[in-house]
Amino acid sequence: MNNVREKLYPWLAILRAKHMGSERAKKLESHFGSVEKALQASAQDIAAAPGFNADIAAAVKEAAQGKFDRQIENELAWAQKEGVSILLYTDPEFPFSLQHIPAPPALLYVKGKILPGDIIALGIVGPRQASDAGRRQAGNIACQLAEAGVTIISGLAWGIDASAHKGALRSKTGRTLAVMGNGLKIIYPREHTILADQIVKRGAVISELFYDVAPQGRNFPPRNRIISGLSLGVLIVEAGERSGALITAKYALEQGKEVFALPGSVDAETSKGTNKLIHDSSAMLVTSVEDILFELEDKITFYRNELEGKIPKVDITNFPARSKSIDAAPFSLDTDTRSPKSKKKISILVTQATEAAHPAADMLGGDEQIVYNLLSTEPKHIDILCRELNWPVSRVSSVLGLLEFKSFAERESGMRFRLKEE
Amino acid sequence: MNNVREKLYPWLAILRAKHMGSERAKKLESHFGSVEKALQASAQDIAAAPGFNADIAAAVKEAAQGKFDRQIENELAWAQKEGVSILLYTDPEFPFSLQHIPAPPALLYVKGKILPGDIIALGIVGPRQASDAGRRQAGNIACQLAEAGVTIISGLAWGIDASAHKGALRSKTGRTLAVMGNGLKIIYPREHTILADQIVKRGAVISELFYDVAPQGRNFPPRNRIISGLSLGVLIVEAGERSGALITAKYALEQGKEVFALPGSVDAETSKGTNKLIHDSSAMLVTSVEDILFELEDKITFYRNELEGKIPKVDITNFPARSKSIDAAPFSLDTDTRSPKSKKKISILVTQATEAAHPAADMLGGDEQIVYNLLSTEPKHIDILCRELNWPVSRVSSVLGLLEFKSFAERESGMRFRLKEE
Repeated sequence: MNNVREKLYPWLAILRAKHMGSERAKKLESHFGSVEKALQASAQDIAAAPGFNADIAAAVKEAAQGKFDRQIENELAWAQKEGVSILLYTDPEFPFSLQHIPAPPALLYVKGKILPGDIIALGIVGPRQASDAGRRQAGNIACQLAEAGVTIISGLAWGIDASAHKGALRSKTGRTLAVMGNGLKIIYPREHTILADQIVKRGAVISELFYDVAPQGRNFPPRNRIISGLSLGVLIVEAGERSGALITAKYALEQGKEVFALPGSVDAETSKGTNKLIHDSSAMLVTSVEDILFELEDKITFYRNELEGKIPKVDITNFPARSKSIDAAPFSLDTDTRSPKSKKKISILVTQATEAAHPAADMLGGDEQIVYNLLSTEPKHIDILCRELNWPVSRVSSVLGLLEFKSFAERESGMRFRLKEE
Repeated sequence: MNNVREKLYPWLAILRAKHMGSERAKKLESHFGSVEKALQASAQDIAAAPGFNADIAAAVKEAAQGKFDRQIENELAWAQKEGVSILLYTDPEFPFSLQHIPAPPALLYVKGKILPGDIIALGIVGPRQASDAGRRQAGNIACQLAEAGVTIISGLAWGIDASAHKGALRSKTGRTLAVMGNGLKIIYPREHTILADQIVKRGAVISELFYDVAPQGRNFPPRNRIISGLSLGVLIVEAGERSGALITAKYALEQGKEVFALPGSVDAETSKGTNKLIHDSSAMLVTSVEDILFELEDKITFYRNELEGKIPKVDITNFPARSKSIDAAPFSLDTDTRSPKSKKKISILVTQATEAAHPAADMLGGDEQIVYNLLSTEPKHIDILCRELNWPVSRVSSVLGLLEFKSFAERESGMRFRLKEE
């Protein structure tokens, strides 16, 4: 417990400071070298850090001076008693896919277990006020996918969420993760306490929020980015015109994940949002589990091979602090923040791929050359490129954009890219 | 009547010959210079024409020798009595949009009137066994579109077809055309006789078949190409997995028309086909009249301007026999079959557009140069290019494909093309 306490304490303290959140805390970590050092820094030095000011610095100093120690002790005691793991975003146990979204949470509270195989996951979301048909569809699809080895991720809410979790639990060995918009001390809605217990046995209940944070509306949209972040893709079963499920779709698109939607009658209020997503090409219309598995086939095969050791597993223990990439706009180019280890990996990949180099490839910049060499005439998903390069999706996406622009690469459906054939 | 008889007789005779259809008759017209001359040719000469043989030649000779004269006289008498016009595909009254599809019918029987404004038309189709909701949607959409000045085209069948016609008639001045899969002597289904009478007053009932051809299953699929051919786009309201409406969608795509579909619940049998069209990107999901009008806006504006004389009307009286284009595969390049008149028009257009010429435009072949000069950075629909050039869609499509391939043009949604920006 002492090691864990030592590692977590600075984060648990700094994140409780006023005006503070995962992104700001990671900025301080990056600026001062570690959160411990940030806490030890003078208020003046903190205020001078880019994006900070005297108010935030004062709040950090309060945290450094032990303002939250009692809350932290209570939380750590509660976590030990309840068997809740608190994962730091740099921990090897921290879900890989969530590490690679823009603005990953700094901490993740996990009751239950996230297994390596849970990387093969689909988010299933929809409104609380879902139709009976929608609930049934969510449950059936979740059950069939879970039987096919896909972990079902949702938000434990009434309606589609609950049906999706229950569907996964209905399958013999299906796994499911519930991402909460409140601290794990509370199960919300209360009526889903038993469902949450069942989920813990076949997956985990997860939150990025301190254990005693009550359910509040403003915490639910950011929660949705974790649902999509943990998933290879997201299925929107139903959505009214202003459904929160549309926020999940938006996050999923930003994260480069697949977005699927079930179509519905033009008369149905609960399909207005899903139909609009499909109309706007923001989601692919699917009508069956087969449709979904077909679209995810490349990714699933890739991760299955990795899990079975058929391809070398990416080493994430030396995962660098990615504060630059995190703050970058989705399509800006990052400077190189890779660790020496991952750099070496890339150079091997580059060497392997250089044989097929394009005659005009010397027209490309460094990053472009690297990504170019990983492409072939077979479409490859951006997620797989991210995984191969250990780059954040924003960086890979930006480079792919340049390659597309220069007519070296072309985009296929579903964020898959290939070399442009002459 | 005698002039009409003189013009039509050779076609009415040759088309009745065994093994003969519009395409073969047009081949003979093209080979011998006219259908009259084909009828006068020797069996040997006919059999020697490319794609013909002794059997067909014998059948043509029987027709030439008056085998069908009595039927023809009966038909002409019937047409006069019923006020049915028989249009030849080269007649100026023959609908322009139908002239430009692959394999247009050689003859069109029209009871009622096709007005120039009917070029602004949408096909609305769906199954006979439609849901109540589907019928209601078809009727409402047809009514609103008809009120917006869009002619509604359908097939007079039970279900969606009837609802679409009735919806158009419900609007004050709405127009609607019914394309039959049988000869106009028969109204099928009989229960739609009154509906057909109403349609004749506000549009026309149309067929490419001899007046006494009975309803037969095999005639319905080719009928569907006329529904889409007369339309700027087609809306599939519902479709089961094997619905005939899917054939209409297929024809519409081949003809370069917009295809729209209403989405439906994944549980509804009557939506399996429409959902699949959307899933396969063969149709655009629409949920309202606004969605449809938004997509057709460019075309409608173009034709409205033309109808109001704001842009010079394309002269179709010198419309050439387009047998070559008709037989060509959808993406092959045709040789130039334009009349001198239309050539002149193009050269004017080309002159106007040359100012904005691309520096590398001299890399383009003749046809490519012409189409290139008609493009700008604003997307333009392929139909408008066809209209401006008076070329069949297959030829324009093929040239656009080359321009896209050479990175001079790029395709936007819905068959619209624009210059590729550097």
